[in-house]
Amino acid sequence: MSAGLWLVLLDLAGTFVFAISGALSGVKHRLDLFGVLVLSFLAATTGGILRDLAIGATPPPAIGDWRYLAVCLLAGVITFYCFSAVDHLRRPLLLFDAAGLGLFAVAGTDKALLFGLSPLAAVLLGMLTGIGGGIARDTLTNEVPAVLRGDIYALAALAASVLVVLGRQLGWPLGPTALAAVSVCFGLRYLAIRRGWSLPIASPPEEPS
Amino acid sequence: MSAGLWLVLLDLAGTFVFAISGALSGVKHRLDLFGVLVLSFLAATTGGILRDLAIGATPPPAIGDWRYLAVCLLAGVITFYCFSAVDHLRRPLLLFDAAGLGLFAVAGTDKALLFGLSPLAAVLLGMLTGIGGGIARDTLTNEVPAVLRGDIYALAALAASVLVVLGRQLGWPLGPTALAAVSVCFGLRYLAIRRGWSLPIASPPEEPS
Amino acid sequence: MSAGLWLVLLDLAGTFVFAISGALSGVKHRLDLFGVLVLSFLAATTGGILRDLAIGATPPPAIGDWRYLAVCLLAGVITFYCFSAVDHLRRPLLLFDAAGLGLFAVAGTDKALLFGLSPLAAVLLGMLTGIGGGIARDTLTNEVPAVLRGDIYALAALAASVLVVLGRQLGWPLGPTALAAVSVCFGLRYLAIRRGWSLPIASPPEEPS
Repeated sequence: MSAGLWLVLLDLAGTFVFAISGALSGVKHRLDLFGVLVLSFLAATTGGILRDLAIGATPPPAIGDWRYLAVCLLAGVITFYCFSAVDHLRRPLLLFDAAGLGLFAVAGTDKALLFGLSPLAAVLLGMLTGIGGGIARDTLTNEVPAVLRGDIYALAALAASVLVVLGRQLGWPLGPTALAAVSVCFGLRYLAIRRGWSLPIASPPEEPS
Repeated sequence: MSAGLWLVLLDLAGTFVFAISGALSGVKHRLDLFGVLVLSFLAATTGGILRDLAIGATPPPAIGDWRYLAVCLLAGVITFYCFSAVDHLRRPLLLFDAAGLGLFAVAGTDKALLFGLSPLAAVLLGMLTGIGGGIARDTLTNEVPAVLRGDIYALAALAASVLVVLGRQLGWPLGPTALAAVSVCFGLRYLAIRRGWSLPIASPPEEPS
Repeated sequence: MSAGLWLVLLDLAGTFVFAISGALSGVKHRLDLFGVLVLSFLAATTGGILRDLAIGATPPPAIGDWRYLAVCLLAGVITFYCFSAVDHLRRPLLLFDAAGLGLFAVAGTDKALLFGLSPLAAVLLGMLTGIGGGIARDTLTNEVPAVLRGDIYALAALAASVLVVLGRQLGWPLGPTALAAVSVCFGLRYLAIRRGWSLPIASPPEEPS
């Protein structure tokens, strides 16, 4: 199997897992079938679409490539009709989600660099590619985005993006760097889930205003 | 009356009805007068603006054409000062909303094709043009978007978009195709409202996480 | 000190105050440290980023200029670790916020005119530059945007934007016009805070649907 095909398969796998997270949330919030499908698609593609808008890469490929849409619809339909089964797989799915997060962050950073953005902008957009879908999913279902609340999620995406930019600046070989970056993101997430790692939360004020 | 003028009038009518839906929601959520006007404008224009960003048609015409702004402000002011009267018209207004939805979906699909987007992307952006305003309205007022929850709303917009793309691919005449697409969207919405049609909702999980 | 440097310092000061408002909200909603930093950054930059997307100025400078990121991170970290102290300064900070609002509105209007947008579009985008960050902050933390609810906030930004456009149309000198516009915005906000001015809210309906 060629490296290119392998990458596309990984990307589609990440899309599938992110779409499932959107569909699970949609079912829980009692959207109808179509709403669940829309949320699957947005959870999987919003990060990349926002990155593409920011770098001027219009139209965003995510809305024109039928494979991504097909994968999102498949994830949405399976989750809709087999909700309990998919929901029970939530914990193993977290591992796929961690891999998808790393992959999206790496791919997003790479694309931003390719479009000539500065290292800082590429890091921020790489992270956004990874976390944008989860933010859209939670905002649309009226929740404070989980990726901002804990479990070292956005930080893991950031670590992957920083590694990619460092690698480019220092001339590291592309493939191994990408692999290392995805691995770091995956490892951070794995440890955060396994050991309950999380970042500090400020000393609680009395009540939200 | 020329066909062009007729289309502009229809488009402005759709804008007016969508703006009213935004203003009604704003008043219910106790926004002040200015906030109600902002929400009127966003409910009517967000779908088109997001489509324009996605196809790279910047600046979006909606923010530069005073007629759309004027129509939105008019709808907002009327709704603000005659809330009860407008609220009582909610059901008849649904018919105008259904027409506006079809019109926005058709116009959005057409514009995307005109900018050279693929048929799939044009369908998705046409639907987005129709439902984007409602999603913005509900997200800003802290509700799960109604268009994702039921009543065959997004699906009606999708049907119109698909018809337009099919027509272009098969060389159907433009005017009749557009009319048929708007009619299908309107008809679907009318039947959904009249007969309480809706798409399935997944078997309820015990509690939202 | 040159006028250019002075402007940059003012802009960074506005960014700092907006970032603090984001961080305060993040801590109150119990985001973790990283989430608080993300919200600081978005509260300070979303308005400008949306304006840049609308005028096609991609990539948005806010994601590439390390000074803005540094100022946002600084504001976020201080707020996170000294929440009570910063929260007690909330009222004096409102004055800086008022100045930042005026400055952002003026800068946003100017940039839109520079990119050749129509006067109407420039006014709308100038206002958006001022209020966009607050809308993002409140939407992400699951609240109806405060800027749409009262205290003559969006209207003050609008007034500044209108003055800038008027000045350009009538050939007024740039510097004094900008100063007058920021002052009008600041004065309106000061009076609104001091005297409890606010715009009318529609006669309350019985219950939100």
